[in-house]
Amino acid sequence: MKSRAAVAFAPGQPLRIVEIDVAPPKAGEVLVKISHTGVCHTDAFTLSGDDPEGLFPCVLGHEGAGVVVEVGEGVTSVKPGDHVIPLYTAECGECLFCKSGKTNLCVAVRATQGKGVMPDGTTRFSYEGEPVYHYMGCSTFSEYTVVAEVSLARINPQADPEQVCLLGCGVTTGIGAVHNTAKVQEGDSVAVFGLGGIGLAVIQGARQAKAGRVIAIDTNQGKFELARSMGATDCVNPKDHDKPIQQVIVEMTGWGVDHSFECIGNVDVMRAALECAHRGWGQSVIIGVAGAGQEISTRPFQLVTGRTWKGTAFGGVKGRSQLPGMVEDAMKGEIELAPFVTHTMPLEDINHAFELMHEGRSIRSVVRYGTA
Amino acid sequence: MKSRAAVAFAPGQPLRIVEIDVAPPKAGEVLVKISHTGVCHTDAFTLSGDDPEGLFPCVLGHEGAGVVVEVGEGVTSVKPGDHVIPLYTAECGECLFCKSGKTNLCVAVRATQGKGVMPDGTTRFSYEGEPVYHYMGCSTFSEYTVVAEVSLARINPQADPEQVCLLGCGVTTGIGAVHNTAKVQEGDSVAVFGLGGIGLAVIQGARQAKAGRVIAIDTNQGKFELARSMGATDCVNPKDHDKPIQQVIVEMTGWGVDHSFECIGNVDVMRAALECAHRGWGQSVIIGVAGAGQEISTRPFQLVTGRTWKGTAFGGVKGRSQLPGMVEDAMKGEIELAPFVTHTMPLEDINHAFELMHEGRSIRSVVRYGTA
Repeated sequence: MKSRAAVAFAPGQPLRIVEIDVAPPKAGEVLVKISHTGVCHTDAFTLSGDDPEGLFPCVLGHEGAGVVVEVGEGVTSVKPGDHVIPLYTAECGECLFCKSGKTNLCVAVRATQGKGVMPDGTTRFSYEGEPVYHYMGCSTFSEYTVVAEVSLARINPQADPEQVCLLGCGVTTGIGAVHNTAKVQEGDSVAVFGLGGIGLAVIQGARQAKAGRVIAIDTNQGKFELARSMGATDCVNPKDHDKPIQQVIVEMTGWGVDHSFECIGNVDVMRAALECAHRGWGQSVIIGVAGAGQEISTRPFQLVTGRTWKGTAFGGVKGRSQLPGMVEDAMKGEIELAPFVTHTMPLEDINHAFELMHEGRSIRSVVRYGTA
Repeated sequence: MKSRAAVAFAPGQPLRIVEIDVAPPKAGEVLVKISHTGVCHTDAFTLSGDDPEGLFPCVLGHEGAGVVVEVGEGVTSVKPGDHVIPLYTAECGECLFCKSGKTNLCVAVRATQGKGVMPDGTTRFSYEGEPVYHYMGCSTFSEYTVVAEVSLARINPQADPEQVCLLGCGVTTGIGAVHNTAKVQEGDSVAVFGLGGIGLAVIQGARQAKAGRVIAIDTNQGKFELARSMGATDCVNPKDHDKPIQQVIVEMTGWGVDHSFECIGNVDVMRAALECAHRGWGQSVIIGVAGAGQEISTRPFQLVTGRTWKGTAFGGVKGRSQLPGMVEDAMKGEIELAPFVTHTMPLEDINHAFELMHEGRSIRSVVRYGTA
């Protein structure tokens, strides 16, 4: 079938809106009609060419919501008409990782997903007869996309897809990192580095967890008002200080914060986030994705004196088990999604969404496929 | 009073056995007659001059056992005749850290201890009228030493001091790291980098915790027999492999180990230890003390895919609360200390203990003060 799609033909080039061919779902696969998709920094990272795993041409996008159109052989957990969110972190329930109960890092489709193909090693997308790669198992920048059954969370059909599509990545990552990775407790102090979609979601998660002090840190103080409205108690601009930001935070708090979160992808900020964690028990969670080949460093003394360095992917959330509940939380207003959606636009304007993001003018742009 | 002591007069020089003057304990202080002291790598590190906090002249030694001789004003928790182990990690029970229940890193005497003086800012040691610094709040290389009351664990007087002095540092650090920091569970896999006293203690701790596979790693395969006798199931010499040791361990185990421990103080090994931890949930604990200014590094991807990087000091053990129980465990044979004591010698031969350690010929040398 034909599908409108924004295709990344080459690194560093704008996406091109074209009509691609989408082959029917094979065994264990599902054809989904995407209604809305967010545009995330990770899409921009891959498009830039800096992602060593990036493959071109491809259909980017991994933060979407849609409806099942057709299922392949053997698919039993979803049926046509079901409302779904595609998952870049699958949940098969069968692999060593799913069965461990300790992590959400399912490996069911990991190997092929990283190569831009479906589990059988081929793509369902083509353009002018040439294959087009999938991306993160989702490819939500095509109106019709094919994903593995294990990569679909079935959600409440009453949920607003323009908002809950954001639970496909950033918001879930931030909130999940607070609850699953850091396990923030009532009264704990928190520092959040970077006030994009993920950082703001961390602040919401901290508020849910009844954290005490929540320190929001960004060099763009235009973000502070929204951060405060979501629960930040202090906002700090590193540019206002001569000393390293970790020292500023330690001085503000006495011994550092119980939990810090890096939501940018900058390895120097990752170090600062670790080093502002409380002596004795503070922990720092890396959420941001660093550039290829970049490394984090610190003195081992920071760890020996009780700090813990962690990371998280998709906030430790098991997509099929836990995402439906987060959609319910959003419907009840316990997760506020509306403030994240600063811009909406039709697919044709998707390159503008990347511009807004690069300029720091949007939290999230949501692309809608409908004609409404 | 006069006391025989091995004094470090200058970095890089052998210790000199001299008679120093020891002033009586002031308020909150205790005079202890040390009967035995281990010689640890940390003593050698400070003696070498590489320790940026090293002060000279000083009385090194921090792994001792002895008997209380005299108490200063206000001391209530120990009395003359009590058998004690000096603690370089105090436990006051009153500070933010002690009260947190989350860490053993008491700060009661931390500031002055790091400066080589007692809490009132002065030293109790002098030689030919000039002050001699304390070390790590213990200074067990003097037959008579003065320590803070909060830095003394009172132990069973029936315990053999030649063995339980080792619980003052290395053995407790290794065993504590397994139980308190990593919290190894039955069946977990463990990798131990470095088979000195601490590494062997980690192996014993892993056996106590009923770990499954215990992989012992050292470039000196003369250590493998003892490691096996304490519970190692596999011994690996990195020199036998062309690939990085982390890759060897990952290949041996499928996805890496549940827990790894760095027991050397080498920042490259710290990285290897982290990177051989299991994707999704593996954790790595830094125990070794790195050289001044050295840094650890890795790709943040290692953490984002579920590994946790931690450190530990004194194995997370709260000395006054928990060390007496570990002494009981040693008396019951649940902690085997005898194999650690490969050499004993009188104080006069203490420089030989450093030589044995540098040559990798000893696990621990224990110095005895008695005339026996």
